[in-house]
This record gives sequence, structure tokens and C-alpha cells, in this order.
Amino acid sequence: MKKVGVVLSGCGVYDGSEIHEAVITLLALARAGAEAVCFAPDKTQAEVINHLSNEQASETRNILVEAARITRGVITPLAEARAAELDALIVPGGFGAAKNLSDFAATGIACQVDGELRRLTRELHEQGKPLGFMCIAPAMLPKILPMPVRLTIGTDIDLAEMLEEMGAEHIPCPVEDIVVDEDHKVVTTPAYMLATRIDEAAAGIEKLVARVLDLSA
Amino acid sequence: MKKVGVVLSGCGVYDGSEIHEAVITLLALARAGAEAVCFAPDKTQAEVINHLSNEQASETRNILVEAARITRGVITPLAEARAAELDALIVPGGFGAAKNLSDFAATGIACQVDGELRRLTRELHEQGKPLGFMCIAPAMLPKILPMPVRLTIGTDIDLAEMLEEMGAEHIPCPVEDIVVDEDHKVVTTPAYMLATRIDEAAAGIEKLVARVLDLSA
Repeated sequence: MKKVGVVLSGCGVYDGSEIHEAVITLLALARAGAEAVCFAPDKTQAEVINHLSNEQASETRNILVEAARITRGVITPLAEARAAELDALIVPGGFGAAKNLSDFAATGIACQVDGELRRLTRELHEQGKPLGFMCIAPAMLPKILPMPVRLTIGTDIDLAEMLEEMGAEHIPCPVEDIVVDEDHKVVTTPAYMLATRIDEAAAGIEKLVARVLDLSA
Repeated sequence: MKKVGVVLSGCGVYDGSEIHEAVITLLALARAGAEAVCFAPDKTQAEVINHLSNEQASETRNILVEAARITRGVITPLAEARAAELDALIVPGGFGAAKNLSDFAATGIACQVDGELRRLTRELHEQGKPLGFMCIAPAMLPKILPMPVRLTIGTDIDLAEMLEEMGAEHIPCPVEDIVVDEDHKVVTTPAYMLATRIDEAAAGIEKLVARVLDLSA
């Protein structure tokens, strides 16, 4: 059974992992007969957003503790993730990817990526294992991998230009499709960068999961 | 397009809605061409559970605000739900159904159900519209509907006896299947009362959603 690391960044689109993207990923992995191994950084969220009012709340929450809601408690600190024990890595989106796993939302092209995510992703890549990044998460790839990677964050031209400036080769992509960099075994899909309905996001995510598994040895 | 009310009870299996059940429900409705209309009570959660340690946290959270994480902000207070505007109602499980939508977890067969959920469910039932309850949520049905309803919460004998004592007719059911009370248009499935994997829960939930839509006029 293939073991696929899934890196979460909290629980909720505006301050953590996009919940639909995370759950659809877990379901697609299970249906393909793969085992999802979930990780999240054990550190404080950049912020807490009230998802009803969309306003910042005066609370602090821990990324790992909140991500555990999505995984029914079964989750490991990202610092304990070992590339040798995984066959692939998938990172769902949501603002958590741009606020907690990196500071892309605040600093744009000058962003820094969480050190443990960077280490794990690079090790997997060096071991020839595939990577699947969705939604806004691909924005971290130019800061993780040293070479130009072919990827998508959908069709937002300004954002695409930022990623190109960071060193990526951006390919516009509709919500139900994926972009595959065969050379570097990197699969990306726009998910909720473009989706207006959950089934639109699911179509692309299911393709991403299938291709990531195909690319794993 | 059929409009199906989905009543959530927070965000996370131990103190709110079971996230996988909620998302799989939303995805199945979208794929069937139905519109999900999400509701949650606008009141304080019974408790907040740290999903990593499984310990109670000294925090207060609002059911509606947390449920909004699952719905990407698009959710309405349960008190504003109108039966006439819906074609069916689905209630996912998680401890939120037994702690927030009712107090079944604390008081068992003497439990009381949230007044707005009771009102909405009875109105839909009186209008001949189908109801889908999953996981532990069916435990509320004997307190909502005055007649004996055929339902399942899986295979737990003690719990089944409690439901029978409350007036239900309990039918043991495997995780991937549903129990249908055709007379009362009530569909139930065990979901995470029995599931050990997300795809097991999904199999039953997808059948529940399909049957609920079939039963709606």
C-alpha cells in the first residue's frame, strides 16, 4: 500500500487548510487504495479568521491542533515527517498555505516557506517521488525547488506573473484539470482558486491524486 | 434544482459536525445536481475538544461560526430555515449532533433536541419531504417525530436498545449501506459509527444522499 503524506495547515479556508480540498484528497487516496499520512506544523496559526464574518478574531489557535479536526485526531507534527517513509506528498490549499506554511499572503514573491515543509518536499523530490500541490499551495514551489517547475494556480494573470517572477513556468489551467511537470514529477490543480462549486474542485483534485499515484514508483 | 437543507453542528468530530461526513454530503449533493443550503444553530458549543489530545479546552466557540469553516462562509442561522423553501433535509453526525443539536451524549434517552431543528424537521416531514440522518444523528429522531421510525445507528447493541426504548425501530446496518423507512421518508446510515476509513463512510453517505433525492418529489 502506497503511503502518501498530506500536509495540512489548519482547518478552514481563510486561516488554514481548505476543508473540501483536504477531505476530497483523503477520500481519493483511500479509494485508490493508498494510505494518507497526515502532517501539520506544530506552531501557532498566523491568524484566526471568523469564517462567518470574515473578520480577524482575537484568538490564538495551533495549526496542528486545528488540522486534527480534519483528520479525526490522527496527525503527526510536520517536523517528524520522514521522506524515506513516504511514496509521495500532497499539499491542499486554503489560506493556510499562504499564511501558515508560508508567508506568501503577506510578502508575495519574497515569501519564505516553513522549514520543515521545505526540507520534506526537497527530500521527496531528491528521492524521485511525486508532489501534488493544489489551489494556492503551488505558489510555494519556486521557493522549495531550485529549478523552474511547470505549474498552475489557475487563470489569475497577476498571480501567474508573480509565480513566473519567482522562477516558475506558469500554465493556465481550468478548474477540472491538472498541470503535470513530468520531469520533476510535480502535479498541480487550481481547485478553489477557480472552483465555484465543490464538484468542480473535486474533478481536478481527483485527477491530481490519480496522477500523483501513477507517478510514484 | 432541488434544494436540500444540511444542518451542521460545528466543525470537528468530537465537538461538532464530523467533517468528512459533512463534506461528502455536500459533494454528493453537488454531483447529483442538487443545491445544498447549510444551516447551524447560532449558539455556543456545549464544549470545545482539542482534537489532538482529545481533552476539553477552556475555550468557547460558536456553532454557526465554526460550521462556517466547512461551508466556506456560506451558512444561515438554523432559526431562519424555512421548510417551504427546502425539498429535503440532511443531518451529518459527529458529537455535535449529540452535544449541540441535542444533549443525547449527556442525558441519553431523556435527551432534548434543539427547538429549531425539531421545528424544521417536523415541518418538512409534515410536507412529505424526505429526511436523511447519519452517524449518531438518528438518535434524535425519536424525539422529533411522534411515530416509531425505522432507522439505524449501525450495530452497537446498547445504543440500539436505547433508541428502541425511545420509540424507534432499530435495524442493524453495515457501514456501506442505508436503512430506509419508506412510509416516513427517513433514510439513515451508520457512517463513522462504524467506518474505519473515509471511503467506507462515503459509500453509505452517497447512498443516503441518492435515496433522499429519489424520495423528494
